[in-house]
Amino acid sequence: MQSLTNTITTAAQLSRTEHDSMGEIQVPKTRYWGAQTQRSKDNFKIGPQASMPTEIIEAFGYLKKAAAYANKDLKVLPADKRDLIAQACDEIISGELSNEFPLVIWQTGSGTQSNMNVNEVISNRIHVIQGNELGNGKLFVHPNDDVNKSQSSNDTFPTAMHIAAYKILVDVTIPGIEKLRDTLRVKSDDFMDVVKIGRTHLMDATPLTLGQEISGYVSQLDHGLKALNHTLDHLSELALGGTAVGTGMNTPFGYDVLVASYISEFTKLPFRTADNKYEALSAHDAIVESHGALKQIAVSLMHISNNIRLLASGPRCGIGELHLPENEPGSSIMPGKVNPTQNEAVTMVAAQVMGNDVAITIAGSNGQFQLNVFKPVMAANFLQSARLIGDACCSFNEHCALGLAPNYEGIKKHLETSLMLVTALNPHIGYDNSAKIAKSAMADNISLREAAVRLGMLTDAQFDEWVRPEDMVGTIK
Amino acid sequence: MQSLTNTITTAAQLSRTEHDSMGEIQVPKTRYWGAQTQRSKDNFKIGPQASMPTEIIEAFGYLKKAAAYANKDLKVLPADKRDLIAQACDEIISGELSNEFPLVIWQTGSGTQSNMNVNEVISNRIHVIQGNELGNGKLFVHPNDDVNKSQSSNDTFPTAMHIAAYKILVDVTIPGIEKLRDTLRVKSDDFMDVVKIGRTHLMDATPLTLGQEISGYVSQLDHGLKALNHTLDHLSELALGGTAVGTGMNTPFGYDVLVASYISEFTKLPFRTADNKYEALSAHDAIVESHGALKQIAVSLMHISNNIRLLASGPRCGIGELHLPENEPGSSIMPGKVNPTQNEAVTMVAAQVMGNDVAITIAGSNGQFQLNVFKPVMAANFLQSARLIGDACCSFNEHCALGLAPNYEGIKKHLETSLMLVTALNPHIGYDNSAKIAKSAMADNISLREAAVRLGMLTDAQFDEWVRPEDMVGTIK
Amino acid sequence: MQSLTNTITTAAQLSRTEHDSMGEIQVPKTRYWGAQTQRSKDNFKIGPQASMPTEIIEAFGYLKKAAAYANKDLKVLPADKRDLIAQACDEIISGELSNEFPLVIWQTGSGTQSNMNVNEVISNRIHVIQGNELGNGKLFVHPNDDVNKSQSSNDTFPTAMHIAAYKILVDVTIPGIEKLRDTLRVKSDDFMDVVKIGRTHLMDATPLTLGQEISGYVSQLDHGLKALNHTLDHLSELALGGTAVGTGMNTPFGYDVLVASYISEFTKLPFRTADNKYEALSAHDAIVESHGALKQIAVSLMHISNNIRLLASGPRCGIGELHLPENEPGSSIMPGKVNPTQNEAVTMVAAQVMGNDVAITIAGSNGQFQLNVFKPVMAANFLQSARLIGDACCSFNEHCALGLAPNYEGIKKHLETSLMLVTALNPHIGYDNSAKIAKSAMADNISLREAAVRLGMLTDAQFDEWVRPEDMVGTIK
Amino acid sequence: MQSLTNTITTAAQLSRTEHDSMGEIQVPKTRYWGAQTQRSKDNFKIGPQASMPTEIIEAFGYLKKAAAYANKDLKVLPADKRDLIAQACDEIISGELSNEFPLVIWQTGSGTQSNMNVNEVISNRIHVIQGNELGNGKLFVHPNDDVNKSQSSNDTFPTAMHIAAYKILVDVTIPGIEKLRDTLRVKSDDFMDVVKIGRTHLMDATPLTLGQEISGYVSQLDHGLKALNHTLDHLSELALGGTAVGTGMNTPFGYDVLVASYISEFTKLPFRTADNKYEALSAHDAIVESHGALKQIAVSLMHISNNIRLLASGPRCGIGELHLPENEPGSSIMPGKVNPTQNEAVTMVAAQVMGNDVAITIAGSNGQFQLNVFKPVMAANFLQSARLIGDACCSFNEHCALGLAPNYEGIKKHLETSLMLVTALNPHIGYDNSAKIAKSAMADNISLREAAVRLGMLTDAQFDEWVRPEDMVGTIK
Repeated sequence: MQSLTNTITTAAQLSRTEHDSMGEIQVPKTRYWGAQTQRSKDNFKIGPQASMPTEIIEAFGYLKKAAAYANKDLKVLPADKRDLIAQACDEIISGELSNEFPLVIWQTGSGTQSNMNVNEVISNRIHVIQGNELGNGKLFVHPNDDVNKSQSSNDTFPTAMHIAAYKILVDVTIPGIEKLRDTLRVKSDDFMDVVKIGRTHLMDATPLTLGQEISGYVSQLDHGLKALNHTLDHLSELALGGTAVGTGMNTPFGYDVLVASYISEFTKLPFRTADNKYEALSAHDAIVESHGALKQIAVSLMHISNNIRLLASGPRCGIGELHLPENEPGSSIMPGKVNPTQNEAVTMVAAQVMGNDVAITIAGSNGQFQLNVFKPVMAANFLQSARLIGDACCSFNEHCALGLAPNYEGIKKHLETSLMLVTALNPHIGYDNSAKIAKSAMADNISLREAAVRLGMLTDAQFDEWVRPEDMVGTIK
Repeated sequence: MQSLTNTITTAAQLSRTEHDSMGEIQVPKTRYWGAQTQRSKDNFKIGPQASMPTEIIEAFGYLKKAAAYANKDLKVLPADKRDLIAQACDEIISGELSNEFPLVIWQTGSGTQSNMNVNEVISNRIHVIQGNELGNGKLFVHPNDDVNKSQSSNDTFPTAMHIAAYKILVDVTIPGIEKLRDTLRVKSDDFMDVVKIGRTHLMDATPLTLGQEISGYVSQLDHGLKALNHTLDHLSELALGGTAVGTGMNTPFGYDVLVASYISEFTKLPFRTADNKYEALSAHDAIVESHGALKQIAVSLMHISNNIRLLASGPRCGIGELHLPENEPGSSIMPGKVNPTQNEAVTMVAAQVMGNDVAITIAGSNGQFQLNVFKPVMAANFLQSARLIGDACCSFNEHCALGLAPNYEGIKKHLETSLMLVTALNPHIGYDNSAKIAKSAMADNISLREAAVRLGMLTDAQFDEWVRPEDMVGTIK
Repeated sequence: MQSLTNTITTAAQLSRTEHDSMGEIQVPKTRYWGAQTQRSKDNFKIGPQASMPTEIIEAFGYLKKAAAYANKDLKVLPADKRDLIAQACDEIISGELSNEFPLVIWQTGSGTQSNMNVNEVISNRIHVIQGNELGNGKLFVHPNDDVNKSQSSNDTFPTAMHIAAYKILVDVTIPGIEKLRDTLRVKSDDFMDVVKIGRTHLMDATPLTLGQEISGYVSQLDHGLKALNHTLDHLSELALGGTAVGTGMNTPFGYDVLVASYISEFTKLPFRTADNKYEALSAHDAIVESHGALKQIAVSLMHISNNIRLLASGPRCGIGELHLPENEPGSSIMPGKVNPTQNEAVTMVAAQVMGNDVAITIAGSNGQFQLNVFKPVMAANFLQSARLIGDACCSFNEHCALGLAPNYEGIKKHLETSLMLVTALNPHIGYDNSAKIAKSAMADNISLREAAVRLGMLTDAQFDEWVRPEDMVGTIK
Repeated sequence: MQSLTNTITTAAQLSRTEHDSMGEIQVPKTRYWGAQTQRSKDNFKIGPQASMPTEIIEAFGYLKKAAAYANKDLKVLPADKRDLIAQACDEIISGELSNEFPLVIWQTGSGTQSNMNVNEVISNRIHVIQGNELGNGKLFVHPNDDVNKSQSSNDTFPTAMHIAAYKILVDVTIPGIEKLRDTLRVKSDDFMDVVKIGRTHLMDATPLTLGQEISGYVSQLDHGLKALNHTLDHLSELALGGTAVGTGMNTPFGYDVLVASYISEFTKLPFRTADNKYEALSAHDAIVESHGALKQIAVSLMHISNNIRLLASGPRCGIGELHLPENEPGSSIMPGKVNPTQNEAVTMVAAQVMGNDVAITIAGSNGQFQLNVFKPVMAANFLQSARLIGDACCSFNEHCALGLAPNYEGIKKHLETSLMLVTALNPHIGYDNSAKIAKSAMADNISLREAAVRLGMLTDAQFDEWVRPEDMVGTIK
């Protein structure tokens, strides 16, 4: 009983009363958020708290600041309010206020409540900057009338989605992929002369070089990067200025172009106002498009990681043609058991991105009339994929790709053992005789050379001269 | 010019005029279908013709016959009409009229036009059975008033979906899976004593037997069959009797239960009327549920086929522990290059089923008010998956699983080469000494035995006595 | 320079040195984890820290405790060590040690590093319980030899997956769904006599009652719960006892059955040892199967939420037949604009679960040889889906379903306006006359009654007597 | 017994004997295919016969002809053989030989058997062209040595995939989408002044024009077309010249570039040899990439079709703001029940394409070593999606979009009824008074005008002057 009383007392001490059109509500005393944030927090207890991605919050920082600048230029906001809003926004961008955004992804599908969360935090933060106490006195900068001026949740949230998406792609995703691609290119060059057996249908085939094999991975990532870059243009279109339904009601003339140019200036990224605001509010095809490229890269990464671990399998009972760096203690009893743990992380990331693509596809197709109300789930999945791919490429690059080395012994053993080299004899002794040699080698479980000599079809010297895997790998890189 | 004239003449000769509420329309002279079918054919030129699955048409045969029987019993249809309808339905079920159903999947989402196609064909077929000429004279059995009596597209199409789905599962899918499961069980038993190296993370690990390894596949299929069987109950619920919106308007009392019992009698499958007709028309969760089990089985088949081809990879530069039967000429030059073509077919089927599951998921979630209008796409994907899994299991069983054989030599080589067997020495010479042996073997690229003897830690005889892989495979099957 | 020095000094003060077979590594001084955890933390900087689900950590608490009990009973662990391990495990289960698990999902695909994280924390926690200082002195309970006794990552992690999955389903998911289902059932009963217009193809159709409409939702959730319950049996099978490859090497006889019974006792859930350990390590079809049911429920929830918000659309320019509770201030300017925010959260959750299903499908199909190395990504997606569905159902139930109310006025207006009621006249004045009335009403944009009377086909009194929507809704609930 | 004998006799009469390295096999007497095709037909009875897409067969026609030309130029094939091969290829391209390709998708994953099918048909067709009888006499043009010269299944099949994919996109898909986009653009222009209510969260919002609303759809398709066009470059890269593993073994110098230029000439499409042949054989990221764009367009089409049918819902109990053309008899009893059947076909197609994307994603990520063996399933899904989108857009365009018309009455009713127009009063009477009017109108279920006048806040004339929805739709198109 005592502890209950204590809790109540403490709660009273630790909260302040806020109001909105539905009445009073208790808010934690020291938090900058207000009534609407608190209602959302109470009404949407779905999954872990504060799951709305921080990248979205940061993007809101940029856009609220840009809106204040545009509003001031267009004479609908005084300069002092602009400067205060900008100051608070800079704090949001820097991450200093990261504890002030407790809302979840699974709220209203327009993200209205996170937009209001930002508005309330900016407004109250300014109140405190001005030397006032939270909850006491009138707010100089009003969350709706000032911070949200010339805006609607319906155009701010998709704008934040594009800012956050574009930014993470150029800051995290693309550099990560490029790093890995560059390393693989170096490896491909380094191993361009390491002749090895090829495999098709998982079965032994004609030879190629390890460098050639790896060049295929480089080409995949190059194409993936090109595809991803193609999607940036659609992402660079911003909804801001469309307000509630896309018509731009309640915005001053020229606002949409101007606010986009401020966002571009502040983020140093080439944003522009959307060609069509009706699309920008009711559909998020740019997110679908760009995530499609992330999914393509996930397909490439699944392929690359899986093949590298297959090539490194063993050490004695697998393929065993690559050495991977050893990052963790393998089994304490078995030297050489280096598990391909980085590959495992990458392939798990790839599976996640493929799943996220379906979530985004479904969400993106479900816009109704003037609004798509699956915005937060689209943003969250996109940002997760972009982050994971970037991080996983860096991790895989640093802890695996950079240390990749041929197992020359394993490569040589397979190359010599393979029966496919017999194709090199066709021009010299004819197809039929070559086939006889191969069949005999297979039947007696001996080498081609042994079979050839045993059958009296050629000498050791001839074998050496004619069967040269290094001549079978073509001139094509 | 001549040929154009000819064509026109021919068209006139080859068509007859049908009417509906929108006016006249030309129909091929000898076809049993009527105006509504023809309009759909003209209005939906999407993809290849006649793509509506034949299983759906056959199912309509059963349900139209059952409806006629129930209508007669409930005194809303005379016996002579019932018998004529039943006769035409039997021809549909037997496949004799298979050219009379030209419509595509991509029509109205309720499948109304295929329902009308069936009604029109039955009606006109009866007309001809009665000795009349198509297009001449009044139809004795009216497509709407008689054939479609006590029915609506909205309850017939989902009923046909359940009949077709249930039937293909028990006729094709389940027997196919069981056949493969049984073969794998025999193989598991046969190879229960074939000790081989295990692999985790694709890396060499402690041994198990080939029979144990295969028993995991058997267990997967057993669980998959159990899961699939669980879904049959939901599939056994039939929408018929709900008519347009689920209320059963225009059906005689007791019709829903009676018609389901006739369907059950004719198909020899345990159908019953749906617990809730509103679900049965507006949602197709039974299809979603049952396809979920097919997808699970696809996951198992992907796993099984992929592992079997990895085990059979080589013959010299891969894992090489299994022999697959040779069904086609391998490369004319390389004996022993048996490509795992059956596995490739199975894994492609698995990928298709996984994709189909997403199509069905999306379609199934999009019912609006009293109707889900994604019925044909759900049916088509379900039936494709069910057919492909059944066929692929039979094909894989006959052309691969039955002929699976251990490559004893490859298995033995790996087992002897592996360093993991050193774990067997722990109880005899201690963990530290065992590790020394393993490390020495790895470093010098020699066998455990050689390293052990060279280090003076045990004799050849002791090695033989203590390192017995067959004692490391446990008692667990 | 100064600040660098400071940082180094501080780091030295705040860390201690741990060792493993790769050498020394610095670990935060006050953390219970050890060298292997730290290496994973350093090597896998992918996504946010500590993303490995807490449910998995908690499940490890149960299984490590059970293993200690079984090991003691089978005489391979002394009672004092068992009791100490159990004490530390209880702290893990209670959440007291939640800061000690910093690893991410995107680590090795076997989850080995999280298994070692748990082993290290238990071992060091016991060290401190015994009055020692972290990093000083020999550990009484060894992380590998004692805590991990009779275990391998390969069987512990999948065991933790099943424990966590089963537990969240019965603790969170199923109760959440049941709560919503029960509320909808009450609503269905309450509104069973509220006759309203039906809609098929989004177009006006014959009437049904609001209770009948809602009963379809209830039926969907009932079927979904049944399907989900069917999957529990597969989930109840535990891998523990299979150790590294499934053979159970290094476990005492009877261990697998005994340890499962202890887990069952501690969790109060009906776990048992897996029928086949080879499946249990290399495939996770039970997770695929059970998530398939979650996906089916997501399909149902998408359908239900979407229809409820369509019915509530308006208030004046939409369907407007349902009132939703008002949880947040709507637009400050427009009374009655109650956004269906709870529905939006639920439909976003549904899209996420559908995406997660694909991630799980792909991951589940990729087991290689004796191990599937996509375990953490499968666990994370499963647990997210299960949590989100449970939470979303509770939220939707509390903040939307409980407050659902018919908009009687809107329902009445539509019912009276609809032309479909004309079907009720067929038995009285014939089909052709009825059609004339309907066409006339449509053409002149008047009511059926008005058209009927104007055409002189029936009197007002006859209209009242014959056109009774309440007689058109059947006897089927 | 008799009939059995007859069947055997008939079979003997109707078949001829062919040989390959596995021995004799019976082939239908009049068919051009040979032993390897027959074996595949017998070994892969999975799904319906002849499911390998005809577009792939046609593409093989182009590539075999191009290979013959390049081989001749590079002096490895005589001119007479080149011309014969070209003649047979032209017949394949024209579709004359369409009955000669009986194989299924679900064969070997390299498509080898379809490559051999083409080789055999060309070879035997030439035999017949030269006046010989099938099965009698030596083939002048050998299927492997001549028709398949400088080729391997491993580079021909992916080349056929790219040819077929590129061709269907420019022949079917893109023109279809453009047609629909152009119609919607005309509609957008036509209805640019039709002011109507906007809706967000499905709830009434501020107005926009019907033309603005439709312009969003145009913008989506424009962006989709741009995205699809971006993918053509990757598709234009051809694997041909890589042969078995990508090295180009057994091809004359310069062959890869030359053969691509011939393919380009014959197809009139800008093909070129692939930058990297190792990618081109082992990964099909170009197919993944391009299908990603198709999936994006499916997302747009789902959105567009769904919104159009929502706007057309009713006629009396729905939104009712659009008229759709009537293509089929609606219900015979209810005039005005025009079901949105074309929209239903389009949305079903969209769901299919979304599912196909997952099948392609999974298949594309599973290349192993030098070959991806999911080629046929990727090709089939891609071609189905491309065909369905193209056809569905044409169908929807012709039978729905072209006939779209505003329901002016419905639009006007909603616009007048809506309470959101009150926002227009804010500048004149202030926010608080405006809110009072709106609340009063809602409470008393009267119009804004009525409420405003009743409250004495403005006159009818003022209302007319100030509340002008046409002034609320902005200047943004």
